[in-house]
Amino acid sequence: MVDWSGFYALRAQGDQQDLISKPGGTSLIQMAAGFPDPAIFPVQAFMQATQEAIAIAGTGALQYNAPGGYEPLRDWIAQHMYTQVRLSQEHVLLLHGSQQGLELVAKLLVDPGDWVVVEGPTFHGALGVFKGAGARIATVPMEPEGMAPDSLEAVIRELADQHSLPKFIYTIPTFHNPTGYTMNLERRLRLLEVAGTYGIPVVEDAPYNSLYYDATPPPPTLLELAGPQRVIHLGTFSKTLFPGARVGWMVADAAVIKKVWGWKHLADTCSSGIMQRVVHTLCTNGSLEANIAQAKALYRAKRDALLTGFENIPAGAVCSRPAGGFFAWLTLPLGVEAHVFQEAALDHGVAIAPGTMFFTNGQGANACRLTISLPAELEIRQGASLLVQTIHRLLNTIAR
Amino acid sequence: MVDWSGFYALRAQGDQQDLISKPGGTSLIQMAAGFPDPAIFPVQAFMQATQEAIAIAGTGALQYNAPGGYEPLRDWIAQHMYTQVRLSQEHVLLLHGSQQGLELVAKLLVDPGDWVVVEGPTFHGALGVFKGAGARIATVPMEPEGMAPDSLEAVIRELADQHSLPKFIYTIPTFHNPTGYTMNLERRLRLLEVAGTYGIPVVEDAPYNSLYYDATPPPPTLLELAGPQRVIHLGTFSKTLFPGARVGWMVADAAVIKKVWGWKHLADTCSSGIMQRVVHTLCTNGSLEANIAQAKALYRAKRDALLTGFENIPAGAVCSRPAGGFFAWLTLPLGVEAHVFQEAALDHGVAIAPGTMFFTNGQGANACRLTISLPAELEIRQGASLLVQTIHRLLNTIAR
Repeated sequence: MVDWSGFYALRAQGDQQDLISKPGGTSLIQMAAGFPDPAIFPVQAFMQATQEAIAIAGTGALQYNAPGGYEPLRDWIAQHMYTQVRLSQEHVLLLHGSQQGLELVAKLLVDPGDWVVVEGPTFHGALGVFKGAGARIATVPMEPEGMAPDSLEAVIRELADQHSLPKFIYTIPTFHNPTGYTMNLERRLRLLEVAGTYGIPVVEDAPYNSLYYDATPPPPTLLELAGPQRVIHLGTFSKTLFPGARVGWMVADAAVIKKVWGWKHLADTCSSGIMQRVVHTLCTNGSLEANIAQAKALYRAKRDALLTGFENIPAGAVCSRPAGGFFAWLTLPLGVEAHVFQEAALDHGVAIAPGTMFFTNGQGANACRLTISLPAELEIRQGASLLVQTIHRLLNTIAR
Repeated sequence: MVDWSGFYALRAQGDQQDLISKPGGTSLIQMAAGFPDPAIFPVQAFMQATQEAIAIAGTGALQYNAPGGYEPLRDWIAQHMYTQVRLSQEHVLLLHGSQQGLELVAKLLVDPGDWVVVEGPTFHGALGVFKGAGARIATVPMEPEGMAPDSLEAVIRELADQHSLPKFIYTIPTFHNPTGYTMNLERRLRLLEVAGTYGIPVVEDAPYNSLYYDATPPPPTLLELAGPQRVIHLGTFSKTLFPGARVGWMVADAAVIKKVWGWKHLADTCSSGIMQRVVHTLCTNGSLEANIAQAKALYRAKRDALLTGFENIPAGAVCSRPAGGFFAWLTLPLGVEAHVFQEAALDHGVAIAPGTMFFTNGQGANACRLTISLPAELEIRQGASLLVQTIHRLLNTIAR
């Protein structure tokens, strides 16, 4: 017999945070998992593009793909996704979903004990990767206008004084996961200024950028404001087309892409060439654009349903008003603890994600993340009402 | 500007070995890259299975997949791929290709400085992953009957004496990459005995097992001989169906799978659900079986073409006689160095992989790997003749 525990690497000691087996059940309103609404998946266009790929490339569509990805798609992303910065395909690496980009960033930049700066709260999948790489996490508070700039500056100054400059600043500036907040232009410029002063790379995670509900698009990406020489930018088609494609991308300095390329090759040889051909067709035949328009309308209505459902929310509870993306952040009234709230909400038939998941420093017990992308509009409205009832019940328990 | 080199992790310092940009050119006979012959890819069955998956699961086929993979495929692999050991789906994790399994093994087991034992030569993609994780590599010589058992025992005893027991023994026992050798049953049992004495895990990489050319299948897998409690086993559909599916799998102890599950989720969220559904259909409707039969006949003929082409090989040169898989190992005559041979062979129109790629200790300069899977039968025969000419030319140069 092998005593496996004696062989585990340090990073694999102890239990992994369970990000996976989310509470399920068919009658449950699922506001925990961050899934897109399958109603937007372009099934017919997918089938047609698959047939086309086979018709054009034959068996070649099913062979090993170039490790950097299908060149016409790299080129399309470089030419069309970022209008305010000049890019070419050498700046673009295709990924097996943008989560793989986080893994590659950690591979490229993080030695055990290195500091990285993140927003508090931030995407739990990024925290898992950075901690798995042995990083130490410095947290800058999130505010409705984005990461608090004074706090960012103070955190970095302190680390610089200790001669342990962070390896990068990780941010989700637009339709932030988990809060739904969007960093305004002023703060974007301020963040880049601070990063520039210390020469620190910025890692911009941007899965939701195209999904803005209002007429006005969000401010330019950090990539567009500062260029690929300073920003590693991650994008994905999982939210605008469908996650089953497993196609995301990284934009970065050509020298960085060249480094990351080798790690990507070692991580999984390559991503699926047929899927990248299909995605390229959907990008160029108008399907992506149509899909985004449909998704925006769908998710806008769901956001509105959430806010309507929360109109009579008890004093002390505050819900963010996302202008795009998948998530809203519900701050709970004093005395209502996130895990207690999670359990009580489940009793009422609603699954939510407790705020503590999105911090490494024990914060977040006063809030939770609500996914508005997956449940139907009516369910969201019902879900919000049930969450209001849940809060009332818990407040009554406290009052007693 | 960011001075990126100042931020790279230790593992990312220096240049990555270039595993990717293989010498190309349309007139070149490609015996370097380890690609399957696209002639075996079941294009029609793929299209039909894709249509079926969409017809049955609708948009659900395009949603995020379970991180562990599509359950019916996990179950099918557990029930049908290993007849001599009782497995259930809790022993099986689906991967984005079996290369991802190497990455997850390193994540699970390797801290920087840990020893791992490998065959010399061995698969360069495994060496890249293990070195990337900071492992120290102990090499046991490969022989036509498999890893040399006395040497394995001596290596492990020495490490044990230094209180630095290796984290695992990595082996490709069947149709070995790069040599084409197959470990016989006696050596399999001996390897397991040594591993058992010290309680060391075994990592069995088995991408080629189904592709045996002769009537008799290879000896049982180490997984079947010792069970998932002692062996982490990696498999893939890349060689038996098509690489574009990106579907591989790990078989291991249920507790190990549970650990690895979380790392897989962090590495890429999940693999494509539609591809796993398609592969499951191809497994159950007879396509896989038909494909394997076709592949065996095709590759057997290519192996024979290689050996025929080598009939008049100069004295001192020896080519292995693979009984399955993708590769043969050509030992060069004394005085012919692998990199010189690689260049000279390119001049003659043949791409080969120099033996040094498959070692970390500088060995391999007397040999090269020949891929027999990709070029057509006639090309293989021509390629072998051209390689014979190349050797003659180099020997003449030495003699002069």
